[in-house]
Parts: sequence; C-alpha cells; structure tokens
Amino acid sequence: MAQKKKILILNGPNLNLLGIRQPEIYGKLTLAQIAKQVRALGKDLAVEIEFRQSNSEGELVTWIQQAAGKFAAIVINPAAYTHTSLAMRDAISAVGLPVVEIHLTNIHKREQFRHHSYIAEVAVGQIAGFGVDSYLLGLRAAVNSC
Amino acid sequence: MAQKKKILILNGPNLNLLGIRQPEIYGKLTLAQIAKQVRALGKDLAVEIEFRQSNSEGELVTWIQQAAGKFAAIVINPAAYTHTSLAMRDAISAVGLPVVEIHLTNIHKREQFRHHSYIAEVAVGQIAGFGVDSYLLGLRAAVNSC
Amino acid sequence: MAQKKKILILNGPNLNLLGIRQPEIYGKLTLAQIAKQVRALGKDLAVEIEFRQSNSEGELVTWIQQAAGKFAAIVINPAAYTHTSLAMRDAISAVGLPVVEIHLTNIHKREQFRHHSYIAEVAVGQIAGFGVDSYLLGLRAAVNSC
Amino acid sequence: MAQKKKILILNGPNLNLLGIRQPEIYGKLTLAQIAKQVRALGKDLAVEIEFRQSNSEGELVTWIQQAAGKFAAIVINPAAYTHTSLAMRDAISAVGLPVVEIHLTNIHKREQFRHHSYIAEVAVGQIAGFGVDSYLLGLRAAVNSC
Amino acid sequence: MAQKKKILILNGPNLNLLGIRQPEIYGKLTLAQIAKQVRALGKDLAVEIEFRQSNSEGELVTWIQQAAGKFAAIVINPAAYTHTSLAMRDAISAVGLPVVEIHLTNIHKREQFRHHSYIAEVAVGQIAGFGVDSYLLGLRAAVNSC
Amino acid sequence: MAQKKKILILNGPNLNLLGIRQPEIYGKLTLAQIAKQVRALGKDLAVEIEFRQSNSEGELVTWIQQAAGKFAAIVINPAAYTHTSLAMRDAISAVGLPVVEIHLTNIHKREQFRHHSYIAEVAVGQIAGFGVDSYLLGLRAAVNSC
Amino acid sequence: MAQKKKILILNGPNLNLLGIRQPEIYGKLTLAQIAKQVRALGKDLAVEIEFRQSNSEGELVTWIQQAAGKFAAIVINPAAYTHTSLAMRDAISAVGLPVVEIHLTNIHKREQFRHHSYIAEVAVGQIAGFGVDSYLLGLRAAVNSC
Amino acid sequence: MAQKKKILILNGPNLNLLGIRQPEIYGKLTLAQIAKQVRALGKDLAVEIEFRQSNSEGELVTWIQQAAGKFAAIVINPAAYTHTSLAMRDAISAVGLPVVEIHLTNIHKREQFRHHSYIAEVAVGQIAGFGVDSYLLGLRAAVNSC
Amino acid sequence: MAQKKKILILNGPNLNLLGIRQPEIYGKLTLAQIAKQVRALGKDLAVEIEFRQSNSEGELVTWIQQAAGKFAAIVINPAAYTHTSLAMRDAISAVGLPVVEIHLTNIHKREQFRHHSYIAEVAVGQIAGFGVDSYLLGLRAAVNSC
Amino acid sequence: MAQKKKILILNGPNLNLLGIRQPEIYGKLTLAQIAKQVRALGKDLAVEIEFRQSNSEGELVTWIQQAAGKFAAIVINPAAYTHTSLAMRDAISAVGLPVVEIHLTNIHKREQFRHHSYIAEVAVGQIAGFGVDSYLLGLRAAVNSC
Amino acid sequence: MAQKKKILILNGPNLNLLGIRQPEIYGKLTLAQIAKQVRALGKDLAVEIEFRQSNSEGELVTWIQQAAGKFAAIVINPAAYTHTSLAMRDAISAVGLPVVEIHLTNIHKREQFRHHSYIAEVAVGQIAGFGVDSYLLGLRAAVNSC
Amino acid sequence: MAQKKKILILNGPNLNLLGIRQPEIYGKLTLAQIAKQVRALGKDLAVEIEFRQSNSEGELVTWIQQAAGKFAAIVINPAAYTHTSLAMRDAISAVGLPVVEIHLTNIHKREQFRHHSYIAEVAVGQIAGFGVDSYLLGLRAAVNSC
Repeated sequence: MAQKKKILILNGPNLNLLGIRQPEIYGKLTLAQIAKQVRALGKDLAVEIEFRQSNSEGELVTWIQQAAGKFAAIVINPAAYTHTSLAMRDAISAVGLPVVEIHLTNIHKREQFRHHSYIAEVAVGQIAGFGVDSYLLGLRAAVNSC
Repeated sequence: MAQKKKILILNGPNLNLLGIRQPEIYGKLTLAQIAKQVRALGKDLAVEIEFRQSNSEGELVTWIQQAAGKFAAIVINPAAYTHTSLAMRDAISAVGLPVVEIHLTNIHKREQFRHHSYIAEVAVGQIAGFGVDSYLLGLRAAVNSC
Repeated sequence: MAQKKKILILNGPNLNLLGIRQPEIYGKLTLAQIAKQVRALGKDLAVEIEFRQSNSEGELVTWIQQAAGKFAAIVINPAAYTHTSLAMRDAISAVGLPVVEIHLTNIHKREQFRHHSYIAEVAVGQIAGFGVDSYLLGLRAAVNSC
Repeated sequence: MAQKKKILILNGPNLNLLGIRQPEIYGKLTLAQIAKQVRALGKDLAVEIEFRQSNSEGELVTWIQQAAGKFAAIVINPAAYTHTSLAMRDAISAVGLPVVEIHLTNIHKREQFRHHSYIAEVAVGQIAGFGVDSYLLGLRAAVNSC
Repeated sequence: MAQKKKILILNGPNLNLLGIRQPEIYGKLTLAQIAKQVRALGKDLAVEIEFRQSNSEGELVTWIQQAAGKFAAIVINPAAYTHTSLAMRDAISAVGLPVVEIHLTNIHKREQFRHHSYIAEVAVGQIAGFGVDSYLLGLRAAVNSC
Repeated sequence: MAQKKKILILNGPNLNLLGIRQPEIYGKLTLAQIAKQVRALGKDLAVEIEFRQSNSEGELVTWIQQAAGKFAAIVINPAAYTHTSLAMRDAISAVGLPVVEIHLTNIHKREQFRHHSYIAEVAVGQIAGFGVDSYLLGLRAAVNSC
Repeated sequence: MAQKKKILILNGPNLNLLGIRQPEIYGKLTLAQIAKQVRALGKDLAVEIEFRQSNSEGELVTWIQQAAGKFAAIVINPAAYTHTSLAMRDAISAVGLPVVEIHLTNIHKREQFRHHSYIAEVAVGQIAGFGVDSYLLGLRAAVNSC
Repeated sequence: MAQKKKILILNGPNLNLLGIRQPEIYGKLTLAQIAKQVRALGKDLAVEIEFRQSNSEGELVTWIQQAAGKFAAIVINPAAYTHTSLAMRDAISAVGLPVVEIHLTNIHKREQFRHHSYIAEVAVGQIAGFGVDSYLLGLRAAVNSC
Repeated sequence: MAQKKKILILNGPNLNLLGIRQPEIYGKLTLAQIAKQVRALGKDLAVEIEFRQSNSEGELVTWIQQAAGKFAAIVINPAAYTHTSLAMRDAISAVGLPVVEIHLTNIHKREQFRHHSYIAEVAVGQIAGFGVDSYLLGLRAAVNSC
Repeated sequence: MAQKKKILILNGPNLNLLGIRQPEIYGKLTLAQIAKQVRALGKDLAVEIEFRQSNSEGELVTWIQQAAGKFAAIVINPAAYTHTSLAMRDAISAVGLPVVEIHLTNIHKREQFRHHSYIAEVAVGQIAGFGVDSYLLGLRAAVNSC
Repeated sequence: MAQKKKILILNGPNLNLLGIRQPEIYGKLTLAQIAKQVRALGKDLAVEIEFRQSNSEGELVTWIQQAAGKFAAIVINPAAYTHTSLAMRDAISAVGLPVVEIHLTNIHKREQFRHHSYIAEVAVGQIAGFGVDSYLLGLRAAVNSC
Repeated sequence: MAQKKKILILNGPNLNLLGIRQPEIYGKLTLAQIAKQVRALGKDLAVEIEFRQSNSEGELVTWIQQAAGKFAAIVINPAAYTHTSLAMRDAISAVGLPVVEIHLTNIHKREQFRHHSYIAEVAVGQIAGFGVDSYLLGLRAAVNSC
C-alpha cells in the first residue's frame, strides 16, 4: 500500500498564545483547535500532518533543515520572523521543498514593517488574511505543489 | 428554494492573453480554461460564478461598484492595476463587499514595483503564487468570507 | 445680450457613489444633490454650470481637452486620479484654462499616498476638506480666476 | 439681541510685508488692504473679524491658545511656520476650534519643502493659491464650519 | 510579390493636441503632420505604416495586444503613460514584438517624475528629445529591429 | 549650613494648557498640580525647585543659557520643540549642565515626526510615557546626575 | 495578609557581561550588583523582584509569555534585541502587562541603528541613559503602572 | 559729504555665549571681541557697522525686515536657525538686500543636520569655517556686493 | 564651394574593447567597424566625421572644450562616465554645441546605477539600445540639430 | 614548552548544510571537509583550532562571550546573522578579541540585503568570495592579528 | 632675508573656459584675469602665488600630493570634481596642508547634486558665491590659516 | 620549462603616499616596502609579480584592459576609485580575468561613502582591513583563482 505524503506545518513565535492573545486581531481559536481542523482536512486530502510551534528562530531553522527527505512540503506561519529572519529564508532555499507561507491576518493592512516578507521571496506563494482558513487553504496549496 | 450566492470573479489587464502570453511566467492555461475550473468548483461549493476580464481601469471600477447588492463577494486578479490603481481601491472600499485578491505568480518574488498592492490594503486577504490554484483557493476564501 | 460664462465641473472615479459610499468619510449628500447646490450658486454668480462624472481616466482627459474654447474655467475633483494621473495633468497643462482642484475630504489628513497631487502642480489652487462647501468655494474661486 | 460670532484671522511671519515684498509671487495688496476686504465680507456674513499678524512663533501659539472661548473659528495663514511649527500644530489640536488653513500662493507648485504642512493635518481643510481670495474663501469655510 | 512589413505607430494621451498644445515644449507640428512625415519615410523604407492615438490606457493595451501577428514592430510614444502604466508594460512583454519607445522632448531634462520609464525596461531602446525626428529615427530603428 | 542644590524644571510650548488640553492624551493634571508634586518630591530629596513654562523658543534658549552657575541640573519637557529646535539643543550643549529630557506621553508610540529628539542627543537621558511620573522620575534622575 | 505584587526584570543579550564589558560605555557595576540594588529598592516599594538574563531571543519571548498571571509588570532591558526583535514586541503586545523599557546608555546618542526601538512602541514608556538608575527609575515606573 | 554705507551684522541663537561656550568648537573670542574686530575692519573699509544678537527667531525676522532702506547689506551668522528657519529665509527673500551667510565653524564637517542651510539658498554666498575670519571675510564680501 | 559640416563622434572608456569585450552585451562589431559605418553614413549625409575614443575623463573634457568653433555638433557615447562625470557635463554646457548622447545598450534595462545620465540633462536628446544603429541614428539626429 | 595559540572558528545558521545545500552557490565541500582543511593549515601555522556551528543566535552570542581568555582570535562566518544580529555584534565588541569575518560567497554581488554587515563594523576585517579559501585566508589573517 | 610663504591656487575642470563659458553663470573674467587679481593681492599680503588649472582628476591629485613641503596652503576651486572626487579628498587628507575650498557661484543655490562637497569635509572652510571675490577672500583665509 | 604565471598588482590614487600619509590610518609601510613583501611571497608561490600605482583613473582603466592575455589574475587596491569608478568596473568586466579587490583598512568601519564598492560586484572577492596582509592574502587568493 502506497505511503501517505507528509506535510510539515510550522508555527513561529507567539502562536502558542492564539485564542488567548489579542483575539480581536488573531481570532478566538487556539493553536490546538487550528491543528485539529488542519488534521481533519489532511485526512480528507489523504496526507499526514505534522504540526509544530517554536519561539526559537534557531529551532525553526533546524526543523526546516530536517524536513528534507521526510516531508513533501512545508506550510509555515513564520509570525514575527517573517520580517526579520534571513536564517529561516536561507534554510528554506537550502532544503529545496515547496514552502507555502501563511498568515492569519492580512499583513499588508498592518504596520509598515509587517508588509515585507523575507520568506515570501523563497516560497511558492503567500496566503494572508483568512484566519484559520489561511491554514486550510495553505494545506491545499501545499498538497497541490508537491 | 433558497437562491445560490453569487461570486464575481474579476480579471485585470492582459489576463485575456493567458496561455498565449509568457507561459514560462504565467502558465499554459487560457483564461477560458481557468474560468471552467472556477465554475466547476463553484458548482461544488454551491455558488454561482460570474467571470469577467477588462483592460480598462474605468470599466473595472464600474464593475466593482455595480457588484453591490448583486454579488456576495468578489475575487479579483487586478494584474498590473494592483500596483497603480487607487481608483479600484476606492471602489472596493466603497462597495463594502468582501474582496479576495489573487495573483497567478508570487508577486513578492518579482520586480520591486510588483511587491506593493494598493488592493491588499482594502481586501480581506491576498493569495499569490499558485497559478490556477490561486483562483480556486481564492474562491474558497471568498465563499467562507460572505 | 452678453453670454454667460460657462464653468465645467468634473468629477473623477467613484464620486457617482457619493451619499451611498462611506458617508462617515465623504458625507451624506449624493452627487446629484451636490450638483443642485452648485447650479444654484452658479445662478447667483451668473455662470452656466456643466456637471459631469466619469470612472475612466481617458474620458476625463478627453473632457478636459474639449473644454478649450467652450468653458471659461474648470473645477475638478479628480478623486483617486489626483495621485496617479499624469495624463490628466498633461491635459490640464495643454488646455490652458484656469483649473481649481477640490476635494471633499482633507487629503492631507489621510493616507500618505493621498498627500501628493499631480493636479495641484498645474492648477490655480487647491481646496480640500470642506465637503460640499469645497465645490461651492471652488466655483467661487474659478469664477474669480477667469 | 444675539451676539455675532467672532472669527480670528491669524497671519504668520513676513506677511506684514505683503504688497511690498515680492509682488510677482504674493500680489500687490498690503495686509491692511486684505484685512479690509476680509472685514467687508465679515459684515456680509454677519461675523466679527479679529485680524492679527506676528513674526513670533511663540506669540502665534499663545494667540491660538487664547482663542478658546472667545472665537468661533480661526482662519490662519501660517506662512513659513506651516512647514516647521509643531508648536502651532499642537496649539491647534489643543484649542479644539475649527481651523481653516489658507495660503496666498499655491504651495504645491513651489519648492519641495513648502509642499508639506504640519497645520493641514490638524485643520478642517486647506485653501491655497487664490491670492486675497484665499482669505475670503477661507472666511466662508470657517463660518460654515462653526 | 512579397508583402510589405507593417509597423504600428502608437501615440498616448494628449498627443492629439500636438501643434496646438504648448508649442514651446512640444513643437508646432500637428499629429497629422507628423503622421504624414512618418508615412513618407515608411514609403522610402518600404514598410506600411499604421498610425493611431488614444487617451485611454485600456485601448492602448488592447492595441498592443492585437498587434501580434499583424505587425512586425511597434513604435510607441506613450506620453504620460510612460511613467505610470504597468498595464502597457505587461502588454508589451506579452506581445513579443520589438518595441521602440520615443519621446518628442528630452524627458531626462524635465520634471523628476518623467525620468523613469516603465516602458523602456521592456523596449528594444529609447529615443528622446528630437521632436518629429524622434518618430523618424524610431521608425528606422524599428525597421532594423524586425 | 550647606546650601540646597537647585534644579530648574523647564516646560515647552502648550504645556500651560495641561489638564484642559486633550486629557485623553496628556492626562487631567494641570501644570500647577504637576509643579506641586514636583516641589513636594524636591523637598524629600532636599533640592530647591524652580518651575517655568514658555511658548517661546527664544525665551527657553535664554533660560537654559542663564541656568549656568545658578542651577545644578535641568529637567526639561521640550514638548513640540523636542523635534524642531536646534537652538535649544545648542544651548544645552553650551551650558554644560546635566539635562534630563522628559515627556508625559510615550513619544515613540505617536506620529513618526515625534520619534526623533534633537534634545536627547545632548541630554544625559530621556524618560517618556509615564505622565506626571515622568517629571518625578526625571527629578530623581537629575538629582543623581549632579 | 495581602500578597506582594511581583515585578519581572528581564535582561537581554550580553548584559551578563556588565562590569566586565566596555565599562567606559556601560559602567562598572556587574549585573549581580544591579540586581542587588533593584531588590533593595523592591523591598522599599514592597514588591517582589524576579531578575533574569538571557542571550536567546526565543527564551526571552517565552519568559514574557509566561509572565501573564504571575507578574504585575515587566521591566525590560532588551539590549540588542530592542532594535531587531519583532517576536519580543509581539509577545509584549500579547501578554497584556505594563512593560517599562530601560537602557543603561542613552541610545539616542549612539549609532543610528540604536535609535529605533520596536519595544518602545508597545511599552508604557522608555527610560534611557541613567546607568543603574535606569533600572531603579524603571522599577518605580513599573510599580506605579500596575 | 557722502554718507557711509551701513552694514548690519546679525547673530543668531547662543552666539551671546561665544568665548564661554565650548571654546574647543567655537574658539575663545567673545562676541564683543568679534564685534570690535568687525568694527575695526569696517573703519578700514569706510562702512558703518551695526552689530546685533538675538535668541528669538521672530526678532531676527523683524530685524531683517527693518533693514530695508537703512542698510546696504546684511552679514548673518544664523547659527542653529540656519537649518530650521524658513521664516528667516522668507524675510531675506523679501527684503531684497544682499545677504552674506557666515559660520565660525565648517558646518560641512559637523553633524549631518548642519550641512543644509535654508539661508544659503537665498544669500549671495556662504563663508564657513574660518572662526572670527568668517566675519571679516563676510564683511568684505558684503561691502563688495552692495 | 561650401565647406562640409564637421561632426565629432566621441567614445568614452572601454569602448576600445568593443567586439572583443562581452559581445553578448555589446555586440560583435569593433569600434573601427562602427567608425567605418558612421563615416559611410557621414558621406551620404554630406558631413565630415571625426571619430575618437579615450579612457581618460580629463581628455574627453578637453576634446569637448576644443570642439567649439571646429565642429557643428557632437555625438557622444560616454560609456561609464555617463553616470559619474559632472566634469563632462559642465564641458558640454560650456561648449554650447548640440550634443546627442548615444548608448549601444538600453541602459534603462541594466543595473540601477546605469539608469541616470548626467549627460542627458544637458544634451539635445538620448538614443539607447540599438547597437551600432545608435551611432547611425545619433549621427542623423546630430546633423538635423545643427 | 610554550602553549599553542587557540583560534575559534564559528559558523552561523545553515552552514551545517554545506555541500548538500545549493552547491552552485556555496560549493561542494561539506563543513566537515572545510574543518579538515582549516585544521591542516592550523597545524602548519602552529595554532590549535576549535571549529563549531550553530543555528541559534543566542548560542553564537554565548560562544563569542566565552571565547574571552580561552582563544587568541575568532574567525567567524556569521551567514544570515551577518545582516541582522546586533546581539552578535555587541558580543564581539564586548569580548575584545580580534575577529575576522569571512564569507564563502562574495556577498557584495548578491541580494541588496546581503551587502551590509553589522559584524564587519566591529571586526578587524572582512574576507568574502573565495569559497573554502575564505576560511584559510581568514585563519592566516587571524593568526597575524593576535 | 626671510622667504615668502607660497600659496598654491588650484583650478579644476572647465575653469580654463572662464569668461568664454556661460558668463551669465560664471561671470566675464577669464582665468588669466582672475590669476592676475590673485597675484596682485598676493603681493599685498606678501605671499608668493602659484596658479594652475587641470581637467584631469589624476593630475590634480598629484599636484595636491606634491604641494607638501613646498607650499604653506592650498586654495582650490575643484569645480565639478567637488561633488565626485574622493581621490582629491584623500589627497587633501594626506597632504596635511590647510586647504580653502572656493566656488565662483553659490553652489547651494544650484542643482541638488552640487550641494554636497566631498572636499569641504576635509578643508578648513568653504567660500562660495562671490565670483572672483571668492578667490581673493579664499587667499586671505589661506594666508591666515598657515 | 613551464613559464611562471604572472599576477598584476594595481594600486589606485594616493597609495604612493603610503607610510608618509596618515600612518595612524594606513600604517607605516611605504608602497615600496609592500611591493617587496608581495614579491617575496610571489617567489614562494612561484608567480611573477608586476606592481604598479597610478593616480589616474584612465591609466588604471588602460592597465586593466592591457592585462588580458598577459596576466593570469589581478589584485587591485582601487583606493578612492573603489567607490566612484564605473569605468574601472567596466574594464574589469570586459577583461575577463579573475580580480581580487583588497583594502588596507576595513572600509566597512569608515565613512558611509566608503562602504559601497563598485569593484566588488565584478571581482571574485574582497579582502579588507588587514594592512599589508591584505596584499599577501589577496595574492594567495588570486593565485588560487587562476
């Protein structure tokens, strides 16, 4: 029996606070609830989901590196590191997997310093502004990209 | 029997050349083939699709204005007008419908002047880089937003 | 009997939505109601009023061009084209009529990209921020300029 | 008998030289002649006019502060302080009266450093480019704003 | 007998006013007189000339698109759209024909905002500053480029 | 008996309006009430307090100059002049006393033009954002700096 | 008996080198000596002090997150992360506690890249330039803010 | 007997502190000593010298205005107002006298914000960097300019 | 018999390497071959051609200066000095001859620092992008300009 | 017998992927193979080599701090942190050891954001562009600097 | 008998055209006439004058280098090289002589690119705008500086 | 017997002053002493060294051009021309030899205008900050590059 494709879902700093933190900006769902919806869609799309979060740039870099050969694609919500992390950008360039960048909020509507993404320049594409739907659309995009 | 929600799909300048024009950048599908896939998904999602293209900024402004009261949401690929049309931006602000901005290519990877979108600042969100999938994901996002 | 001077009042994109569109920003009067007030003041000032609106940059350019020899002055609310249309600017330079630029809102208080006007640099002057009064003051200014 | 509304007309640095100074830029009327025309229109509009000039930023700040409770509105030609005085801007914010900013010349046509106004961002609106008419239109705008 | 190559000469906004409009900047020839000189040179060079003007960005985009397969090259004076039209730029990229950009005036000597051309970046080359000669030199360049 | 150290507290333009002016931004205390709290703390810290306000840049410059030899330190809330007055900056450089810059509000959160301080570059340090506490902390800092 | 309020004092990268590192810039006190002075003042102000340092951005983010519900306020010297860490900024926004930003040195006098603080924009206020006094004043400010 | 030409020497803010203030930057001469040297040279050049200093921008503006008809030329050391005062610039433009701008120090070697002069753009010329010699050379230049 | 007009063709640094150097950018013709084509066209147009190249900015400045009175016009390919040489620009301003600036490549398509030309601002016009044709078109333009 | 000098070689994020990652940019050698060459040269130069890599900014900061007293010099390839890490810069300033910055690639040829190095400003010097040779030259430079 | 001090007067590119070239900008005196006036003043001031001009940056650099030990000071009108020559700047830094920078015109009134001087930052001072007087004042300043 | 590879070492303006000029910045070695060390290392590495210096940009351009076919690589210290010479850059691009750029000082620590190198973008790599060692390391790098 053929093995399922595996998709890695990465979450950057402060996303562990989702649902608790500023719900007027980020919505009321917790990260665990989002993970549940993502896994449910993964089942529908016949892919296996690995869902992680870290506040550490170095750890995220390492996770991206280690995805090579184990995952078919990465969906990443880099949060604040979107705008500052060249290290994550270089890891993505290096790992050679299709990467879909997602954001809960529409970063293009927020502070000026959130408009630019170092990640988008090395990703397949970017999805921003649809709350938990950004995760679900991102998963669909990732599955179609690999 | 309840009436289906209607979604307006708008296409900006030069998108009538899709499939013919620079397939190495924009892909091999024609706009008609994209429309067909969008309508197919519309059927699955139980929404009615209206699909249009124009090279004229003024006509696009008028179409956005007239969507009020007739459509539940707009999915727009503003193409070159993304980066220059304040008039389309103002029309979107005025019309009060949820608008999903889509792009075939990952505009954040291309020339500097394609990174900024006047439309994104008044849209629900932006999806860029997934080819025809940008239309399909955009339709899903629009249906969920209205 | 001497012929009345004629003043052309031009309105740019989305101004056809006035009164309907974002009344908290642009006020509750419709464009027709504004036209009525302008015509009433025109009567008092003994000038003839021609009042038009278009969403099309090209059409506005053509109207400005055709004003030569027919109108004594132009009052223009260029709306979004204020900030992007070099073509309208060139038409105004070419036509050689006194042009008064008006805005319902105080554009200097709004988004950064609305602060600069390509039109103001070739107009007699600019009036911004007084709602319908911007039209009435603009008409007075135009009558005194020609 | 009802008391007339009072309007304060403030003039910034060097405007005491009007008529003498660079008439090719600022016109031939003296400040006294402008004051006379403003007072005549004030009579027509049934408002009382107080007309002052100062070269001192501090004095202008104090006059703006003291207008509270005594005047219904301020018409100000801040001249050179338009582009440099945060103190006058803060005074206007503080005093809570409607303020109409006027300029004899079209500042948007002149040197780059005259394009930006710190005052406009806290005023009701701005009128620029109509010579003495800027004062008269400004008075009308002020009367309608209070 | 072999068919003559066809060259499309496109003229942007306000060029219909040539000869009437600001002759101190743009010269005294009308667009019709220029067309006549261009056609005369076309005869000498054994090419067929199609000469058009439009104030509408959308119409110019459409004309560029439709040139594919019918014309061997395009000579374009984009006028004000030189500096603002990404839509015309994208049309030129798409159509795949050699395009020669021309200007009556030396745009590099004029206002700062006229120095940059979005068209030049996708054209074979640019010729600016030689009045009607810009058209004639442009035609020669176009004939040699196709 | 040893003489008490004297501390000069200077207040820039519009601070005479405190408590009246925009209490939602600057708080409800009047300048007199702040002075009272500052004097009370001065007593505790065994220093003598001189408390002044001016709307005039020139007067503030002169007060700073005259502080030499009479005061041990200056606490200054330069208000709007923070961002524009090189003259006050030069006076502080010249006078050679320790200067503590204070602000009622957190200027780093407000408009872009309030982020830069010409004074901070020549002061011992800056305290911003704590309302009347900025004065009290500033006094403590000044006493420790001299 | 009522429980004492707890204040968290956070120290960013390289502050563990205080006293050893560049004493001409940062002073001769070690971080342990500063902690002692802070604890002593904490006793006087009847608050409990928790004092920590980390070189890791991720660890600092986590400590800020975990402060919610356990501490009444945070005093933070973010050191180099002041100018680069959007992740710490987002953590502070999320945690909802009053945060006082402090710096040993007057960052506004140092290299250009140290003038801007991502933290200040989400803090109650900023205190910079007073050496160990910045900690003590910061503690007072924090106690008064919660 | 012919009347001597009169030259007005103006000194901006903080120059009253010369000789006391930062002698390592501005030298050891007091303003009175400089005035004495200037008057001595005035005698040699057969011109009458009027020498003044003010910390107030408004007063300097008024002095410049009043020089018309009384003085043949102005030598001005605008000090800090060099870089911020549009009001003094406008006064100089208005007064129509030859103005020579001088600086004790070489402003082009100092902080970036001291490199630009609003005064130089309306002066005959600028002399900077020669200490008291800047005054003496400036006087010679002024005498030759009128 | 009337004397032929003389045209000076100047070539800047590295153009002596044409044909050898980077033919994928600059083409396969050597400078001597270009000179030959230019002279052939000169014969047709009945003008005398002087063709020179130098790597030295100073020598090019001197050649431009010496052209006065000897040549009717200059055609110049300033190569790298286009973007850096104010000295050549000043020489062209001084010499008072019509100057046509040419480039083999379309400089507007290349690196950002090649987009700006100090020469174009003092030339009749600019021709860029047509290989050896730039020289031939430039010669025609020069002959028509003198 | 005299003890050998010890040199610390530090490697930043993603350098653990060398040889695997984008060999067309970074070459085919693995980090282990580079370490081997470096150690071989160390032997020749009679110095002891410690060779480390980390993806964590905090860990790199700590390693730099701990080098004091143990190593004679540091050779660092900061990779992506070159352009973003003020914390590493501050650590280098603090530690007081000679630091040689190296890069495999010529960062001045790559994306704009890779041109600026926060590290170079506090290092002895920078060597970029020579592949593994950058390490070997860097080691020579470090040995000569301590 | 004591030997006279020697002053080197250097003139940059195109100054050999003075009197011929654009007299409305640079005046009617030739460089020889200026040299004569300078030598006359040199006699009065008891200094020996060496007066040279070159169009070559390299030659000017060499002349500056060779002045060491032979001249007491340099007066330089660097003309166009003022704004572009780091090589001349470095030569001046190296040679260690007092250098006075002069300009015939007021460079601060001219094109933006003439406002900045690389030379002024290493000169004693700058004198600009007084025609031949700039040379005479410059000579006085130089004599007093050495 | 096989012929030795030849390496050309080029030195830009003012480097002939080394050892004399500002030794606190550039060190005490003369250029001749550096040449001697370079030749000694050349011997060790079995390459022939040609060592030259010029103050003239044009001469340096010519030397670079003439290196083709005669030298295996170039080591260049372009000094001030590093930051201004597009002509040298173009010569390097044209000549097709490996070029190693070196600097005695760490240009990234010096004035802002010395941070950018036009040469680095076309060189193999850059070595800066190691005094005479920059030459020796540069020679090693050059030998390994050819």
